[in-house]
Amino acid sequence: MCGIFAYLNYLTPKKREEILELLIRGLERLEYRGYDSAGVGIDTVDGGVTLVKQTGKVKRLRDKIESQKDSLGFEQELETHIGIAHTRWATHGVPSDINSHPQRSNEANEFVVVHNGIITNYKDVKQFLVQKGHKFESDTDTEVIAKLIKHIHSLHPTYSFRELVEQVIQQLEGAFALCFKSKHFPGEVVATRRGSPLLVGIKTKTKLATDHIPVLYSKDVFEFGGRALGTRDRDSPEKVELKELSKKKDTQSDHRPHGHEIPSHGLARSQSTSEFLPQGDNKEVEYFFASDASAIIEHTDRVIYLLDDDVASVDNEGILKIHRLKRSLEDSHAREITTLKMEIQQIMKGNFSSFMQKEIFEQPESVVNTMRGRINFDSETVVLGGIKDYISEIRRCRRLLLIACGTSYHSAIATRQLLEELTELPVMVDLASDFLDRNTPIFRDDVCFFISQSGETADTLMALRYCKQRGALIVGITNTVGSSICRESHCGVHINAGPEIGVASTKAYTSQMISLVMFALMVSEDRISAQPRRSEIIQGLRHLPDQIKEVLDLDSKIQEISKEVFEKKSLLVLGRGYNYATCLEGALKIKEITYMHSEGILAGELKHGPLALVDKGMPIIMICTRDSVFVKCMNALQQVTAREGRPILICHKGDQEPQKHGSRVLEVPKTVDCLQGILTVIPLQLISYHIAVLKGCNVDCPRNLAKSVTVE
Amino acid sequence: MCGIFAYLNYLTPKKREEILELLIRGLERLEYRGYDSAGVGIDTVDGGVTLVKQTGKVKRLRDKIESQKDSLGFEQELETHIGIAHTRWATHGVPSDINSHPQRSNEANEFVVVHNGIITNYKDVKQFLVQKGHKFESDTDTEVIAKLIKHIHSLHPTYSFRELVEQVIQQLEGAFALCFKSKHFPGEVVATRRGSPLLVGIKTKTKLATDHIPVLYSKDVFEFGGRALGTRDRDSPEKVELKELSKKKDTQSDHRPHGHEIPSHGLARSQSTSEFLPQGDNKEVEYFFASDASAIIEHTDRVIYLLDDDVASVDNEGILKIHRLKRSLEDSHAREITTLKMEIQQIMKGNFSSFMQKEIFEQPESVVNTMRGRINFDSETVVLGGIKDYISEIRRCRRLLLIACGTSYHSAIATRQLLEELTELPVMVDLASDFLDRNTPIFRDDVCFFISQSGETADTLMALRYCKQRGALIVGITNTVGSSICRESHCGVHINAGPEIGVASTKAYTSQMISLVMFALMVSEDRISAQPRRSEIIQGLRHLPDQIKEVLDLDSKIQEISKEVFEKKSLLVLGRGYNYATCLEGALKIKEITYMHSEGILAGELKHGPLALVDKGMPIIMICTRDSVFVKCMNALQQVTAREGRPILICHKGDQEPQKHGSRVLEVPKTVDCLQGILTVIPLQLISYHIAVLKGCNVDCPRNLAKSVTVE
Repeated sequence: MCGIFAYLNYLTPKKREEILELLIRGLERLEYRGYDSAGVGIDTVDGGVTLVKQTGKVKRLRDKIESQKDSLGFEQELETHIGIAHTRWATHGVPSDINSHPQRSNEANEFVVVHNGIITNYKDVKQFLVQKGHKFESDTDTEVIAKLIKHIHSLHPTYSFRELVEQVIQQLEGAFALCFKSKHFPGEVVATRRGSPLLVGIKTKTKLATDHIPVLYSKDVFEFGGRALGTRDRDSPEKVELKELSKKKDTQSDHRPHGHEIPSHGLARSQSTSEFLPQGDNKEVEYFFASDASAIIEHTDRVIYLLDDDVASVDNEGILKIHRLKRSLEDSHAREITTLKMEIQQIMKGNFSSFMQKEIFEQPESVVNTMRGRINFDSETVVLGGIKDYISEIRRCRRLLLIACGTSYHSAIATRQLLEELTELPVMVDLASDFLDRNTPIFRDDVCFFISQSGETADTLMALRYCKQRGALIVGITNTVGSSICRESHCGVHINAGPEIGVASTKAYTSQMISLVMFALMVSEDRISAQPRRSEIIQGLRHLPDQIKEVLDLDSKIQEISKEVFEKKSLLVLGRGYNYATCLEGALKIKEITYMHSEGILAGELKHGPLALVDKGMPIIMICTRDSVFVKCMNALQQVTAREGRPILICHKGDQEPQKHGSRVLEVPKTVDCLQGILTVIPLQLISYHIAVLKGCNVDCPRNLAKSVTVE
Repeated sequence: MCGIFAYLNYLTPKKREEILELLIRGLERLEYRGYDSAGVGIDTVDGGVTLVKQTGKVKRLRDKIESQKDSLGFEQELETHIGIAHTRWATHGVPSDINSHPQRSNEANEFVVVHNGIITNYKDVKQFLVQKGHKFESDTDTEVIAKLIKHIHSLHPTYSFRELVEQVIQQLEGAFALCFKSKHFPGEVVATRRGSPLLVGIKTKTKLATDHIPVLYSKDVFEFGGRALGTRDRDSPEKVELKELSKKKDTQSDHRPHGHEIPSHGLARSQSTSEFLPQGDNKEVEYFFASDASAIIEHTDRVIYLLDDDVASVDNEGILKIHRLKRSLEDSHAREITTLKMEIQQIMKGNFSSFMQKEIFEQPESVVNTMRGRINFDSETVVLGGIKDYISEIRRCRRLLLIACGTSYHSAIATRQLLEELTELPVMVDLASDFLDRNTPIFRDDVCFFISQSGETADTLMALRYCKQRGALIVGITNTVGSSICRESHCGVHINAGPEIGVASTKAYTSQMISLVMFALMVSEDRISAQPRRSEIIQGLRHLPDQIKEVLDLDSKIQEISKEVFEKKSLLVLGRGYNYATCLEGALKIKEITYMHSEGILAGELKHGPLALVDKGMPIIMICTRDSVFVKCMNALQQVTAREGRPILICHKGDQEPQKHGSRVLEVPKTVDCLQGILTVIPLQLISYHIAVLKGCNVDCPRNLAKSVTVE
């Protein structure tokens, strides 16, 4: 939800055209996070600040800038300059030029800001500022930030840029990542975050002088500076930290070593050097601020992940500093400069028409990457390095909770039955937002899994903090190294699916499932009675990549079927047992990218209401594979055909029985019941893709949605 | 799903016209159970058996019979006669005359049968019978029963009618209630059940001679008579019983006294008399066999509920006997004759256009009936007589599980948060079919709730047996005294909502919610810290009936709103927190009776996919009441309006803030957060009702659905 990007060239002369190109390219990489509108803020030829904003996709902003190249001064060379940029996913206020970012303090653009997140107390702040005479022009929550910093600047004209920002964020509640630019502080930038992700890329000609940046703590006076407006969120990060410190036992506290496994792709610790940050003769440096690494990787692989409430500033000497208001016992007092191991090709589409299509077709490889180095198919052993130290604690727990949103939630549903079978523990699956709404009771001996592709999903992260505060063991399942969920969990699994750019998640889903299956295999390794079942599953996993290829070969047949249904208004996806999650996930894919009202329905619930929808006009997809619920599925199929429904069937290759009842049949290879969902979901991914293409929808950028949902 | 009805007049002369009228009236009362087709089987003028069958509703069968009155011999008087009748909800085979019941053994109608349920092994049986030379004419599973009894009769011509049926049911797997008629046994009837409900009404001129009928056990030879075809269901009732006997501790076994509370409406034990069944001079007697009491109450209030595998027969001397194949330690060795307390008015529509409308408007009274005698509003105490002996055991349990289907499942979701809050226990909510599919681990210290209006829902009942077998404490929440769930649970609550005839459940939902709220209040009575909350809820319950009346006053406004949306294809219902269940339930109502594709969506999940569906054309209903998630709901509302959605809002009376964003507003009174769902669901019940009327749908008999889902 929203992408922010900023670029600072210190003593590195660039033409304004180059700078704008760089900002636009950054936005294009972040476009999957939101594409309702886009905007940039840069210096004018006469030393002021100008904003160019445009409703719609980044392409339209590019065109607008191109049309203004003379007035913007494309050719002017700037030795040091900070430009900020934003691509928006609208939350407060409709998509429009005036609601686009950067938002500004006043008509003179004294302070401008880009924001990813939601300010929940913006109404209180706005009321306060209106009383002080500020005039608002937009419907956004962000505008209060720009007005507030100007207000504080007018009260304290001697404050540095960074001090002003520190004052501002003390007044804010909610989630944010922010980058500020000001005509009062030319060439300087201040960036900060709470809840929403933000990282800093550093590019120098010579090797970096250090592998970490120390955290500086501001004077105590700041601690009592704010809190005038509204009330603090009950679970604000500081309070959470303090509560945890006083509450936790040593053995179960945050001193638990963080067990996230170092993945084969992603970041690794940088080599320590004895040099220091560019000083002396070599002062040139470029900084990149971005919501995620994909916008930075083409420029540099050296990055710092900011933590909540870090305030990062680059002053007029080109030095990057990280400040925090308060010292905390838990803080490491430094931020590491890590090296991205991402490859630039990974974020390019290649020969595919969209990232989503590419990612669907990557699944034979991405599932291998998820299993690589973890499963030994010959000795039939499974080791998840990030979790192995916790396995005995997990085996003794009261219950497992799987908490997630959207597609990640479906991966939990898909593996729940296997987890129940192999762990013999009660397994609860909850939507993060509902889990939070309910103030669900959590116990010290609970083990809570948090599943999120980005590792930044706001609801999931809030649920994580809620459970951590109550002493549960926190296990993260993410695809993004360095993400908040990754950092804040006690241990976890990186699914290693590689960067996922398409807003509709595909390969992350199958890799999440495999990660949870591997976890179940590992927990049950000591049970003799479970060995035949484990063996069957491990061998099933071995053959999965080839079977996925077979399923992908159905592509042209699926395209034909899509032509028959793409003009329908509704679509039902039916199944039960291990395929229930497939129905939910398939229906979600179709909703997301085709805007067709599709719904996944448990076949067992058909008779309790949904069957009323069935007639010969209603398109239905039904999954009917040979497992323990096959007979029940066939009953449901008969009920559907008795109402003249002619479903599209997904069934096992060569299985004649269900085929008699289907209008069209998609045959998938047979695998172990608990893995079958991986093979049955892919046809649905492809159906959604083809329907979207046939309807002329933008596959990678579905309307109203964004990839990483970093607001509640 | 399917209703069966049979009428036997012994030495009670009736014209054939009267008998047919009686059969048709019985079917009309049962029509809510299925209305794809109907049929009757009666004697012909020349001593044979004739079937009249007709696709469509019972009304069409009535017309067909009327048109054949001369050939049927309306005027002939019959001293003793058995007629069987059936109204069908199609499972196997499309609705058609040939697939209608009664099904027959051969063209000569030697044996005819009516069936409610599903025979799961019918293919094996059919194959066997085809090999023996039997010719099948229909696509139904039922036809095998008629053919099989003829087959056994040809092998054992000396067997009595009852012995033949005993042989037949040993070969059957699945769920059934059956009534047989045969030209070989004129004036006799045999009825039996397994899984599906069946009761026998008895009408005599004089007082009944006894208040119970002893169970007779057949010779041992029968125990080994069958099982030739297919394999027995793993969880067949007998096996369950045996396993339980060997496994249970005394204190936790089925010797737990059955604690179902005697409700204010429903049945009560009959007064014991020292007389016997009609003998001597007074031999006239009439018997009624029916799927439920509503078809019997207009004739007699004296009924026997048959248990699984009971075989009830009336022989040619007019004597009713109940046989079982095997003696079981758990069996009471007698079946009580109980007195229905149902009033005939309760099953009449009165001034309403449909039962559903009547039941919606009954809710101010039905909620009072649910609370009557249980809540003392002055002393703020709650006593559920059926549960009170188990409260301390429940407080010590590991977790609560709420298991149900359809609307009953939604009542569990609606009260989950309050149960978590007041019991401080983990609460799991599961769809019965998914719960069974997953073979969910169940522990001896679990407490499992089974919620079902009819008390006969097949999936819920199977889940009950699954949990009972594993030693959990079983709590039933039903609206039907004497139902299977009621009988097989250790304790429970009758919701006392009165008979619900409309297929779409309305008043049962609100009464289920109140029953679960009362349970939560009772469990927490000993916690001092919970007293303010309990007091608030109890006072909320006190004012609920008047507030429901206020909501019902919105009827004409809701009718207007319905006119705006009834032609749309889709409808989304959004909300979160306590109102999430309302969304699911409201959407289900709309699905069921309007055939419009509606879906209840958790507002917190909007950003994870469903938001893509939102544009200015998509009709949306959103619930936004002032509770702890109000601000989050307002965020979701802003996201919807930012995409030009113009939702119909359900909010608190006089609340200005949400109203700014809605196209239409329905204002409901404010109550305690956990009860608010009762007041917000009623507008949705009314919307579904009005849309169905506007679309010309049959409100009480939605297509494809039946009231009580007694098959898996």
